[in-house]
This record gives sequence, structure tokens and C-alpha cells, in this order.
Amino acid sequence: MSAAAAAAAQGVTAARGFEAAGVVAGLKSTGKRDLAVVVNRGPDKVGAAVFTSNRAKANPIIWSRQAVADGVVEAVVLNSGGANCFTGSFGFQTTHQTAEAAAEALGVSAGDILVCSTGLIGTGDETFRAKVLSGTADAIAQLSADGGAAASEAIMTTDTRPKRAVVSHAGWTVGGMAKGAGMLAPGLATMLVVITTDAKLTAAEADTALRRATHLTFDRLDSDGCMSTNDQVTLLASGASGVAPDLDAFAMALTEVCADLAQQLQADAEGASHNISIQVVHAASEEDAVTVGRSVARNNLFKAAIFGNDPNWGRVLAAIGTTDAAFDPYDVDVWFNGVRVCTAGGPDRPREEVDLTPRATGILIDLKVGDAEATILTNDLTHDYVHENSAYSS
Amino acid sequence: MSAAAAAAAQGVTAARGFEAAGVVAGLKSTGKRDLAVVVNRGPDKVGAAVFTSNRAKANPIIWSRQAVADGVVEAVVLNSGGANCFTGSFGFQTTHQTAEAAAEALGVSAGDILVCSTGLIGTGDETFRAKVLSGTADAIAQLSADGGAAASEAIMTTDTRPKRAVVSHAGWTVGGMAKGAGMLAPGLATMLVVITTDAKLTAAEADTALRRATHLTFDRLDSDGCMSTNDQVTLLASGASGVAPDLDAFAMALTEVCADLAQQLQADAEGASHNISIQVVHAASEEDAVTVGRSVARNNLFKAAIFGNDPNWGRVLAAIGTTDAAFDPYDVDVWFNGVRVCTAGGPDRPREEVDLTPRATGILIDLKVGDAEATILTNDLTHDYVHENSAYSS
Repeated sequence: MSAAAAAAAQGVTAARGFEAAGVVAGLKSTGKRDLAVVVNRGPDKVGAAVFTSNRAKANPIIWSRQAVADGVVEAVVLNSGGANCFTGSFGFQTTHQTAEAAAEALGVSAGDILVCSTGLIGTGDETFRAKVLSGTADAIAQLSADGGAAASEAIMTTDTRPKRAVVSHAGWTVGGMAKGAGMLAPGLATMLVVITTDAKLTAAEADTALRRATHLTFDRLDSDGCMSTNDQVTLLASGASGVAPDLDAFAMALTEVCADLAQQLQADAEGASHNISIQVVHAASEEDAVTVGRSVARNNLFKAAIFGNDPNWGRVLAAIGTTDAAFDPYDVDVWFNGVRVCTAGGPDRPREEVDLTPRATGILIDLKVGDAEATILTNDLTHDYVHENSAYSS
Repeated sequence: MSAAAAAAAQGVTAARGFEAAGVVAGLKSTGKRDLAVVVNRGPDKVGAAVFTSNRAKANPIIWSRQAVADGVVEAVVLNSGGANCFTGSFGFQTTHQTAEAAAEALGVSAGDILVCSTGLIGTGDETFRAKVLSGTADAIAQLSADGGAAASEAIMTTDTRPKRAVVSHAGWTVGGMAKGAGMLAPGLATMLVVITTDAKLTAAEADTALRRATHLTFDRLDSDGCMSTNDQVTLLASGASGVAPDLDAFAMALTEVCADLAQQLQADAEGASHNISIQVVHAASEEDAVTVGRSVARNNLFKAAIFGNDPNWGRVLAAIGTTDAAFDPYDVDVWFNGVRVCTAGGPDRPREEVDLTPRATGILIDLKVGDAEATILTNDLTHDYVHENSAYSS
């Protein structure tokens, strides 16, 4: 393993000042790891987080939003195997007790513990609570400075592989882990992600950098248009490097880690056979570019056409015609994998010239009205997507 | 055949004053009927129409919007086998020439001829034009007072069966035909529909009644969230009954015909295995009820769950949580086929009690905030939907 690969394998424990663990709490019927803890050993205990904008928020989201408000976070407890969403006051008490249990074991305040859950909505009964509480104790007992890999496995649900990324800079490091393979659509965050850094940051700096990075990465991943109830992206900063970074350089490194994790989520999306990158250029505004790209990303007919290796530009134009972005539908160019199949709203190169067999698929939409651009990542609509989401409850 | 069934079989020729024909113009590779003409023989020549709100509008839409503006319509020419959308000025000239050819053969003004096209976007070359023009001449030569059935066949694309409906009232009749099996989502109209009546109506009365009826029917059918570029619903009134109807009674009969056709479109939606009716009750406003219902109808995870006979109420709550409608996510009840599986945002009856094997599926969402309600019709997301829309270009 190269040094870079070894660093990436650490994920949340690549940066100094962090310990993690991933254990078997018995929540997954498969008997695989299903509970993770990530602890910030300091010296700083800076935390920031962004949450799903879905109004249907899971209990851990309701708890964590309050807990992170003061910018101080000691640890994050994450479980797979149950979303603890729409489980009533019993479910909220479970989250609260989880934070209390972790706080007591770590000798800190429960108000500085974040909790994340993922799995089937409506799951959160007494058995769930008992397993989460004992798993939390087990994980804290097993915390180690190289526990990042085990932690990244413990948060997987339908993911086929763990997702970790690390970027090292002169003097400081940013590393992270993510889970998510479906219900991926923007709403600030779109999955469970924990990112750690040993850079010295104030809470405000961490918050600003995190919002900037997620806005450009996770917010632009729209695999299936379905927004989760449990999404949370958390950034923990230990200051253990002793280095206060240039904030632009830090934001760039953080964005790089987020983009890497977002691409890993896209590549592992449920049942997908194409990773589709929709680049919208010459838009009047970045917002317009995002709106246009997202409208294509959410069009089932377009997504099914890509699955069928069909460069159906008519479906692209039909999708963007539903938006209120500034452009003339009869002056738009569309490219599929480098071939301009539509010029000024009319046919250009024959469809036979387009090869859509590679998994990586590039759509370029030229609106010809301004200088702004944005790229939205999505996936195709496949038989396997339908199969996984009709057979697996989440 | 009963009298009612015989009347329904007539569709657009059930009302007095109308003739229609459906012929083989050679646009469909299958050699089936692909061009229809519906002519109003009067004495009145009242017409009204609603169109797709997609900004990407096909050439026939651009033409017909102008042609119907004065409330006078002599005939409608409709073809399947090519959408004539994004085919440039050549395509617009094709539509114009079609109207001219029909007008000349009928001895009327081209400005009183509406044109509708459906099929693959980008199709509209010289061969297409030649076939449409010769088919228009053929159809006009074959016009008859019982041509409604043939006309309804000629507008089919991926439809597995023609769609017709008739409602007779004391003294007057409303009949219609529709095509559409995919790309069904609201935007005023969502398919090609022609409705005829022998009631005596002014253009303003016809327009008002049509907008009211489509608002409550076709606008609430959202099979796959994809809005077409070619949708048009046209109402022709001949006044041949000599009866000026009570306008409320007429609007009700027209709504009944539209609702019947909308249900036929839902039942024939591409690849669907469930007809899902999403009823939202106790909403603060009708708009809120529509917003909530539509958000569930467009959620791929919910649609895939129904395909899998899974009463996944968590996906319903996750979908409605993305809207800004007035309700408390923790005070919502959800019923699947008569079984309340979620009460006040928490689990209620066990999922085992719900039988989702029938094709007809009823979801009831009680928002508990007001007195408004609305019902959205949709379909499930199936392997066959993916297959048909990845293998068939439209």
C-alpha cells in the first residue's frame, strides 16, 4: 500500500487528534459492523455540521442540530441498521440516552455528543435502543488512532464498499468517511459523512468552510431525487497540528475531500450502471445552471435512456423546458460524451456517433446566455435500482 | 354492445356535428393507423385548447396556440410516429403546410385548423412531411360520422389500447379520445386529447369549462413526473344539439369525460403494475393538497416500494417533508389500502395487514390542518417502465 493509500484507508483517523472504532452492535441482520464512534482528542473541540433540509427530520437530526449549535463537539456516535426516524418521543429519548452514555464513558458533556442514524424509517424500538447503547459502550472501549477503517464499515447500509478520503496539506490533514447509496438528493447534506482535521479553526471558520464545500459537492449529487430524513455532514477540528491554515487553502482541501466522497457515493449508487456528470455552461447564473442540471438529473425518461445507451437529447430539452432558468430552448446545444447531437434546439450529429457504453457519462448543455456554470452528478435508472428499492425497505 | 358502450366506442364522433377518420400515413414502422382528422361540421365552430406549459414546445403547439386564439376551430389534424419538436423552421413549415392542406381540402381557413403531433422528439424530416401531407388528404377523403374509433387508434404511440369516453346529458353529449402512456405529468395538459360536444357554447364558455375540467383531471395525473413538449387538450363545440346547456352541468359532464380519459391513461401507463390514487385530506388549501400528493407521486423510492408491495410509509413522510405545505410532519396519518400504518408520524398498524397485490392502490394522507383536499393519480416504478423507456425512443 502506498503512503497515500494508507492515509486514505484511515479516513477519519488520518488527521492527528482523532480516535475511532466500528463494532458489531447487532443492529444489522448480517452480523456486520453497525455502530461507529469518532472522538476528537483535541486540544480543540471544534465542530460544525449541516443537516438535511427535509422537514421530516429523524430524532438524531433534531438532537444533533441543538448539540452542535455552540460549535463544540467531542464525539459523534453513528449507527446503521435503523434510522430512528418517526419513532416518537421514545425514539428521541433513545438518541438522548445514547449521547448521555457516550458522554459518561468519555467524561464529557452529553451536549457535545452528536448522534447519526441510518436505515429503515420507523425502526427504533426497545431492542434497537438496547443494542445502540451497548454498542456505544463497546465502541468507546475499542477506540484507537487507526480505527477509521472499521468506523467507515460500520456506517454502511446498501453501500457495497466503505468510502473514505484524505487530503494532506503542508502541516495539516483533512480526512473523512461517508455512507450512502440511495435516497441521494440535495438538501444541504445528503448522506452520513464525518470529516476530521487537525488544522486549527474557530467554530465559525469550520462552519463557513463546511457550508462552502458541501454546497459545491454533496449538494450537487442527485442520484435519485429523493431527499433523506437523516442526512448529516459533520466536520470536527482538533487543532492537533498547531497550524492555523490559510482559510482558502483549507476550504479547497475540504472541498476536495467532499468531492472525492461524493464521487464515491455516485459510483456506488444503488443499481446504477452509469455515473452521469451533467455540466451546464454559459448560464446566466450559477443558480440557473444548477436548476437546469438538476432538472435533467431528475428526469426518469432521460435516466432510463442513458441506461439503454440512447443519446436522447429530446428528453434533455424536454426536461430543461420545465425550468424557469434564462435561456431560449431553440438556442441550446447538447453534447453526449463529446458529440454534439443537438445544435440550437435542432438535430446535429447522428446518434450513432455517440458511445454510451462506458460507465462514465458526460452530458454538456450550453445555454448560450451568460458565463456561469455548474455540474450535477447523477445516475441512470436501471432494473437493478427498481429491484433494490422494491425489495429492500429503507 | 350496449347503447352506452356503442356511444363510448364513437369517442369524438358521439356528439352530433362531427366527423373523423384515422388512416395509415406510413409514419409508424408497424404499418398501423397513424394520422387522424376530426372535423366540426357545425353549425357553430367553437374551439378551446390548453397546452403543455413546457417551454420546450413542439411546432404543432406553437401553431395551434395561435390558431385557437380567436375561439374558432374547424378541424384538428393529429399524427403519431413523430413529434415534430426541435425540428427547426422546416418543422414549423411542415405544421403550417399541414394546416394549409387540410384547410384547402375542407374549404376553410388554415388559421382555423389545429395540428397535434406525438412520437420521437427531433423527428420531422422531408419524408415525415410528405407522409403527413398525403395522410391528411387521405383522412379528409375518408371522414365519416362514425370515424371516432379509427381516429382514436391513429393517435396511439406506446398505448396498448385506444382511449375514448362519452357522457350524454339531456339534449347534448360530450365525447372524447386520448393518447398517452408515458411522459405523463402536469403542465395544463399532459397528452393529446380531443373532446367534442354538440352543446351550444360561446368560445369563452368552452375555454372556461375546459380549463376547469383539465385542472381537476389531467393536471392531477402524474405518472412519471416527465412533462411532454407536445401535450394538447382540445375541445370542439358544434352547437348541433341546439341546446345551450346549464354551464355547471356542462362543466361537470366535461370533467367526467376528462376524468374517465385520465384514468384510462393511468391504467395504460408504460410498464406500470399499480394504479395509485394519492388522496390528501385536511390540507390548509387545495394547492397544499396537490403539492403534497405530487411530491409523493414523484418519489422514485415510494414508487418502487409500491411495485414491491411494500407499504413503506416512511418514504411517504420523507417525500412530503420536502414540500413547504402547511402541516406538522409529526402529526400526519398515512393509510395504505384502508389500513392506517402511521399515526401522528409514528408506526400504527403492522405492515403485514396491508394487501398491496391489487392493481388499484389507495394512499390516504391526513394532514390534520384544514378542510381542503385533492387526489393525484400516479403509477409505480417497475422493471417494465425502465425497459420500455430505455429501449423505446420518444
